[in-house]
Amino acid sequence: MRFLNTLLLVSACSLPSFSYALNVEPANWWVGMNKNNITVLVHEQNIANEEFKLDKYKGVELNNVTRTDNPNYSFLHLNISDNAKAGTLKFNSTNTAHSFEFPLFTRDKNSAQRQGFTSADALYLINPDRFVNGDSTNDTVKSMLEAANPGFKGGRHGGDIQGVINALPYLNNLGVTQLWLTPVLENNMPDYSYHGYAITDFYNVDPRMGSNNLYKTLSIKAKEQGIGLVMDMVLNHFGAEHPWMKDKPTQDWINLNGQFENGKNATSHARQTIQDPHASNYDKRQFSDGWFVASMPDLNQRQPLLNEYLIQNAIWWIEYADLSGIRVDTYSYSDKAFLSDWTKAIMDEYPHFNIVGEEWTSNPAIASYWQRGKVNQDGYVSSLPSVMDFSLQEAVIRALNEDEGWSTGWVKVYQSLANDFLYPDTNNIMVFADNHDMSRLYTEFGQDLAKTKMAMTLFLTTRGIAQIYYGTEILLDNTPSKDHGDIRIDFPGGFKNQNANAFTGVGLSKNQRDMHETISTLLNFRKQSPALAKGKLVHFSPNNGVYSYARVSDTQTVLVFMNKNKVTQKHNLDYMQEVIPKNANAQALFTQHTFKLTNSINLEPMTATVLVINTP
Amino acid sequence: MRFLNTLLLVSACSLPSFSYALNVEPANWWVGMNKNNITVLVHEQNIANEEFKLDKYKGVELNNVTRTDNPNYSFLHLNISDNAKAGTLKFNSTNTAHSFEFPLFTRDKNSAQRQGFTSADALYLINPDRFVNGDSTNDTVKSMLEAANPGFKGGRHGGDIQGVINALPYLNNLGVTQLWLTPVLENNMPDYSYHGYAITDFYNVDPRMGSNNLYKTLSIKAKEQGIGLVMDMVLNHFGAEHPWMKDKPTQDWINLNGQFENGKNATSHARQTIQDPHASNYDKRQFSDGWFVASMPDLNQRQPLLNEYLIQNAIWWIEYADLSGIRVDTYSYSDKAFLSDWTKAIMDEYPHFNIVGEEWTSNPAIASYWQRGKVNQDGYVSSLPSVMDFSLQEAVIRALNEDEGWSTGWVKVYQSLANDFLYPDTNNIMVFADNHDMSRLYTEFGQDLAKTKMAMTLFLTTRGIAQIYYGTEILLDNTPSKDHGDIRIDFPGGFKNQNANAFTGVGLSKNQRDMHETISTLLNFRKQSPALAKGKLVHFSPNNGVYSYARVSDTQTVLVFMNKNKVTQKHNLDYMQEVIPKNANAQALFTQHTFKLTNSINLEPMTATVLVINTP
Repeated sequence: MRFLNTLLLVSACSLPSFSYALNVEPANWWVGMNKNNITVLVHEQNIANEEFKLDKYKGVELNNVTRTDNPNYSFLHLNISDNAKAGTLKFNSTNTAHSFEFPLFTRDKNSAQRQGFTSADALYLINPDRFVNGDSTNDTVKSMLEAANPGFKGGRHGGDIQGVINALPYLNNLGVTQLWLTPVLENNMPDYSYHGYAITDFYNVDPRMGSNNLYKTLSIKAKEQGIGLVMDMVLNHFGAEHPWMKDKPTQDWINLNGQFENGKNATSHARQTIQDPHASNYDKRQFSDGWFVASMPDLNQRQPLLNEYLIQNAIWWIEYADLSGIRVDTYSYSDKAFLSDWTKAIMDEYPHFNIVGEEWTSNPAIASYWQRGKVNQDGYVSSLPSVMDFSLQEAVIRALNEDEGWSTGWVKVYQSLANDFLYPDTNNIMVFADNHDMSRLYTEFGQDLAKTKMAMTLFLTTRGIAQIYYGTEILLDNTPSKDHGDIRIDFPGGFKNQNANAFTGVGLSKNQRDMHETISTLLNFRKQSPALAKGKLVHFSPNNGVYSYARVSDTQTVLVFMNKNKVTQKHNLDYMQEVIPKNANAQALFTQHTFKLTNSINLEPMTATVLVINTP
Repeated sequence: MRFLNTLLLVSACSLPSFSYALNVEPANWWVGMNKNNITVLVHEQNIANEEFKLDKYKGVELNNVTRTDNPNYSFLHLNISDNAKAGTLKFNSTNTAHSFEFPLFTRDKNSAQRQGFTSADALYLINPDRFVNGDSTNDTVKSMLEAANPGFKGGRHGGDIQGVINALPYLNNLGVTQLWLTPVLENNMPDYSYHGYAITDFYNVDPRMGSNNLYKTLSIKAKEQGIGLVMDMVLNHFGAEHPWMKDKPTQDWINLNGQFENGKNATSHARQTIQDPHASNYDKRQFSDGWFVASMPDLNQRQPLLNEYLIQNAIWWIEYADLSGIRVDTYSYSDKAFLSDWTKAIMDEYPHFNIVGEEWTSNPAIASYWQRGKVNQDGYVSSLPSVMDFSLQEAVIRALNEDEGWSTGWVKVYQSLANDFLYPDTNNIMVFADNHDMSRLYTEFGQDLAKTKMAMTLFLTTRGIAQIYYGTEILLDNTPSKDHGDIRIDFPGGFKNQNANAFTGVGLSKNQRDMHETISTLLNFRKQSPALAKGKLVHFSPNNGVYSYARVSDTQTVLVFMNKNKVTQKHNLDYMQEVIPKNANAQALFTQHTFKLTNSINLEPMTATVLVINTP
């Protein structure tokens, strides 16, 4: 009855009121889409023994029906031509109890031309369960297997979409321009479901998070504050409690015959097998078909009906919730031909959209392999616009924790960015200091405020799209452990009975307030800085513990100096003349001090200096 | 008078007897060359004030003469058409004392189609000064600034080309198929000249090494034993005592105005500035134009006459000494457009030739940038067939010195080879355990014989061209230091008053004899193994301390197992079925034991097992 609930939920929000007994996905489509051949999944006992006919509807044809090796599924292939108008399709079954209606909606006017997130943006990554509990009535929901358990690291703490809505003014003030929420779709798992990556329903928001309608409300209200919404999608795996596990649409829907043999066929995580010309078939299979964990079965995207299902699902959410981007989990773990299809379909539909894939590797040759426009030696073509810069993340932490040397310290950052020659679009790389799967920055630096400020200044002023993990602005810390529960700590002010409140500032330490001020200054400057948004990056070989670079646009030059020395350094600027405008007046971002730039400046110890030069 | 000596030396060997007072480079050319437009450098006081005319010669034209900002040079541009016959050109000057003859020789019949070294080969790298002193009469030569000083690490020890000739039977028995000698051209420097990289005459062998004629003799005698000769060429810099330093052909012949400012303008070695899209012009200049050291000025290959000079010089040596390959020193330090020209000219002349460039980086994205066929994001086109695998060298040493872990041990080797997707031609990569610029393998392993044998087995059975450094076969060791003098240690048996003799085996330890046997077995097997010569590499993710792979050709499969465990391991082969022929009979290379392969084998502790399966 899960699918029935689903449709009723949707219908309560925006569909005309009707009901029927079978499960239909998607529940609707739109007219005027680029993707106008769609496949509707119908699920019900022995449904394949029935015949469906479509009532005459101008511009819409039911081309054919695919039946699989499971009689409980039928796949209806529709063509919705350009001259079709919005309205309601009526599918009649030979079993009239299974006849159903299928709405075709009108698209938002600018839907196709929507602008995805860009290098002008800063994404704020939130684990909604751990951010703000905006609606305590949905902390525990009877129909869901797992109840709230806020005292347990791996339990559900009650944060939700309403909490994010409540925090929008705070986020806007901070300077955030995009939100990336870890998945909010239904995770009806017996335990450890707060993270959201074990999806049990690809078309519905988890009731403990809110509803589809509330998710759409978040999108609307965020946009009113100039903030876009990025959805975290999982293509590789799903939750073991999904109905598909008990009733597979096809026998090959799930990799490795749908079985997890006691750890034997877990993924090897050896992502390089995708590219490696010497990889054995054995190793390739182990990586791609191996399951993430027993509770997250691995989807076989080579199955054409599943391929189609996942493409439609992504487009449905973009259109439904007015998304400005997608983040894809465990990107390369999915079938690579499918990834090519999936990204192309979305980018064909929304040419200015953005999608960032998580390819967790510090090897930029592997990360860049997936970026749109890359000419790969093996001919692989991707339409994925953006990837994440794990290499830079690692390099910055090492640079600040190591002494300077021939191959240690700032040179790691310099060399990491030098590898940008591998990327076809260096502005469309997402940079970040940390995320929900790794130790927090402040912890990595041993609670060193100066290092944390320098690192964040670097991440928020170098090339690419900025991403900041919730709480980094107030020095959240995962001491004592790297346990995910310690990393995904409750945001102060988001829950009852907390000592501190980040929204009001009450109870924050001096260091926390200092960090907040730094991040806020940087993010709000980013918002209106052409140099940081799109400016060319020119960087210089580290010398004497100083790494320096410029961001240069037509009307603004931003100079950044990272001084790792324990003493003030009188820093000669002769080497930098190629990026310093003549007779420049500079303003220091953090102090607002304005001065005429001469051939040297004083750099404070363990400090990032950001100078802004506007060029009329 | 140096150029005069030069020509007399050449003339003593193979040129008709004539003499003249001025310096001419090259001293001759050949008919029937692809490169038939050549430029002859003429050097003499105020030579630019004279006019040259060519006596009528069928098929040859003196097109024009380039004069530079230095009146002491003229550059004569000749066209030698396809119908020109061998003979002697006569150039008449308005100053008859400067008239000169220029022979055109006939090429060796198979010259153009010569086969360069390939992945079927094993190169043996020699520092000739430290290998064998075959002619003690040339240890000190009066016309040369530096005399022999065998007791000093940085001095000349007396080894020479005759010594290499004497060692040919030993090398042939060992299984070597190519020789790479570090440069043997004149290095007339006041000190530290034994290494050969400070060339003071690009057209003549150093008299302490022998002569041009003896070098040619080495080439002929080596070929009789099935061994090719690879010349080590230096394009980036030259010796400060070269006459060019006192009398530059053009003002822009040498980078940074021909001045070395007390270390200030030394190269940064930051090779990634070549590719880095964010590199400042300042950093690019520092790398490319910076000098290697004060004693080795940096050539400006953007100067068209120098570009032409270096191309001709390379082709001259290939043709003159019947080379089977070139190794290029400090490859990327030269101007990249020039490198494109230089490699193209050579490969156009000799389509099956081979050239390997030294790009010392463990970043395969940078190394592969230079390989012919690479589609670079920035459009750069190279004709360099081969590069060196510094990544694998580093990985193997780490793999054997580290404990196994998620990111340590064999996985480093597995990942290094996985990066082969970056290379357009993975067979044309040179693999090596060590060379003349780095600590020797046995030292890196703390004198551990088992590790050294495993590593060498890997290097001599994985994909690519094999290179072995002289003395590795008898465990030469650079304890106590990484000083070049300790690395380039005198080969036992090559010099007077040594306790051991590698040629006779006298005085070698049991371990040394064991290592020699291992290398000899591997190299001689390589010589006739189709699987190792060109077979496809298929490797498997390391598990339980074992890294395994196969080399597969149509008629042979070679299986290699590297067991790092301290105990014998019963190793299940199920995962390897895709590369194991049905009902295979295997022969263990080192023990010659033959057996029917079942689904498991016993792997001895800390041992490489090589199984040969011939498939009829």
